[in-house]
Amino acid sequence: MPAAAPSKPGRPRLVLSQGDPAGIGPELMLRLAAAPPPAHCDLLFVAERAALVAVRHLVPAAWDRLAFVDAAPPAGAYDPAEPIPVLDPVAEPRVVSPGHPEAADAAGALAALDTASALTRAGEAAALVTLPVSKATIARHRLPGFVGHTDYLAAACGLERYGRDYLMAFLAPDLQVALLTVHEPLRRALDGVTGEAVLDALHCLARHAGGRIALAGMNPHAGEGGLLGGEEEAILAPAVAEARRRGIDVSGPESPDAVFTRNRNGDFDWVLALYHDQGLIAVKTAARGAATNWTLGLPYLRTSVDHGTAFDIAGRGLADPSSLNAVIATTVALARGELPRLRAAAGHVVAP
Amino acid sequence: MPAAAPSKPGRPRLVLSQGDPAGIGPELMLRLAAAPPPAHCDLLFVAERAALVAVRHLVPAAWDRLAFVDAAPPAGAYDPAEPIPVLDPVAEPRVVSPGHPEAADAAGALAALDTASALTRAGEAAALVTLPVSKATIARHRLPGFVGHTDYLAAACGLERYGRDYLMAFLAPDLQVALLTVHEPLRRALDGVTGEAVLDALHCLARHAGGRIALAGMNPHAGEGGLLGGEEEAILAPAVAEARRRGIDVSGPESPDAVFTRNRNGDFDWVLALYHDQGLIAVKTAARGAATNWTLGLPYLRTSVDHGTAFDIAGRGLADPSSLNAVIATTVALARGELPRLRAAAGHVVAP
Repeated sequence: MPAAAPSKPGRPRLVLSQGDPAGIGPELMLRLAAAPPPAHCDLLFVAERAALVAVRHLVPAAWDRLAFVDAAPPAGAYDPAEPIPVLDPVAEPRVVSPGHPEAADAAGALAALDTASALTRAGEAAALVTLPVSKATIARHRLPGFVGHTDYLAAACGLERYGRDYLMAFLAPDLQVALLTVHEPLRRALDGVTGEAVLDALHCLARHAGGRIALAGMNPHAGEGGLLGGEEEAILAPAVAEARRRGIDVSGPESPDAVFTRNRNGDFDWVLALYHDQGLIAVKTAARGAATNWTLGLPYLRTSVDHGTAFDIAGRGLADPSSLNAVIATTVALARGELPRLRAAAGHVVAP
Repeated sequence: MPAAAPSKPGRPRLVLSQGDPAGIGPELMLRLAAAPPPAHCDLLFVAERAALVAVRHLVPAAWDRLAFVDAAPPAGAYDPAEPIPVLDPVAEPRVVSPGHPEAADAAGALAALDTASALTRAGEAAALVTLPVSKATIARHRLPGFVGHTDYLAAACGLERYGRDYLMAFLAPDLQVALLTVHEPLRRALDGVTGEAVLDALHCLARHAGGRIALAGMNPHAGEGGLLGGEEEAILAPAVAEARRRGIDVSGPESPDAVFTRNRNGDFDWVLALYHDQGLIAVKTAARGAATNWTLGLPYLRTSVDHGTAFDIAGRGLADPSSLNAVIATTVALARGELPRLRAAAGHVVAP
């Protein structure tokens, strides 16, 4: 579970990592700084001065609201009327070209992520909110195997296996979804739907989030009694039965085209989706751009926007902060234990 | 395209088939009869008197609003202040037990469907709206191969192949989706995603609906340039290129978790989804019970609610008519050519 919020009581501090300096992350930070200070949290930015300078002209009102610092100020000392502290994780003069990522941007993105996650893990912030990085840029220039924030941050904490030790989850205003498999070709993801994988993920979800879980089926109408596919009876139903024997509050496999609406209607707190698009189509359709990506299993609270670097609009003044604003609001609620369906979950949490 | 509406100008007549007599169809008919007459259409019910009698006590106000007739009255002669004509396709005394379907219910469901579709095909109504039948009941007692309304009605019109000659489509208030494959196990459906199948379906969709079509990808992020799967580059992109050469306004393959929201935002008029749940998760999440199932390719206009017989609540007075009301409104708009995204489509229609 996340470390206790170190900020003023009820006012958690959120640390934001810049993401790719050539993406829309720096502009989003400026838009946040220029807006009225968030009522329920303090902010700390980890971003290169060079990245912010490159888009300074897009949001002129923001600059006076930033205070570059050499170290994170003590949490709780922050006055919302004061500028937002900005920690530069690189502190080398360079020119960032929005929309045109290069090797130094990969380095800057990773440096910001390392600094911001270390601060959060050390309890200097209640949560890490990551802005989008470019998998391709980082993989090309720095880490050939890089496939995204989630695996990178998990590995840094010694977590080994996706689905067993950590899970990618999404929170929409009325829908909570975790993914059994993530970034794999669909056929390979289906091959990964084994009884053991489902049991591991149910344990992970129950331990770190809890609540009433519904397992989505694989086939139309969850196989309709075997007429439309056999995986439900052969793999999924036995895994659900075993999980229930172990004390996990789970039902299913449920019809994939109905289970998300049933979650939204309050029948369940969580859906465990079997593959990326099964979960993400529901989340993105329900949230319309306001979903929060939440990593379950890390020793600290980490969330993210659900959009990408948007290199095509970076530097053009078109970045829309509404998704980030929604993520910040959700993250504050998570840090303060205020999400009703997670609070309701307390009685269901299962030991590993 | 649908036959011209035979009712008063601008006031199409819709014929409703009862669905399974032991399901919630008859109760929904009574709820419709008891409500104020729909402003923009006339109704004709094809239902067994025995099925309506069995639920008469649930909606007492409805009975005086029904007029049992021996043949469909001339279209256009109807006065909304008069009762709704009801044609009994069986006309044999029997007892229907809501929630407990038996052989006679399978026979009654098919008789209503045959009568109602023949009337519509003959131009006696502008559209057929089907209430839910039970595939299992009909398959057990009457037609072993029965898999649903769509294939049954298509076969009756001499249409041979799903995807080439006819398509299942769904209309939500801001989303229009057609399905390349329907009721098959997911792995088998993926095997059915061939270039020929995609081209056939794009032709069918362009011919019968038109508009700007987006083809959904198969893999996360539409394969992300081959990193997350090869079907996009090997199968889908070439099919899109060939379809464009043939004059069809189609783009893609698009990222499955983004394409439906882009449709809702107006970037496209239609999404061709590759498999049942890819399309239906989006439709059901977006529509929250108000989606209209529309069969493309029939020589007449046929729509349906997107829920089932609900045997578990049949006869208990719990049937919710809101989905049927939404379908009726959408069907009237279809019959009158008033759906803006279909009107806009006219310039895009492509000959077979």
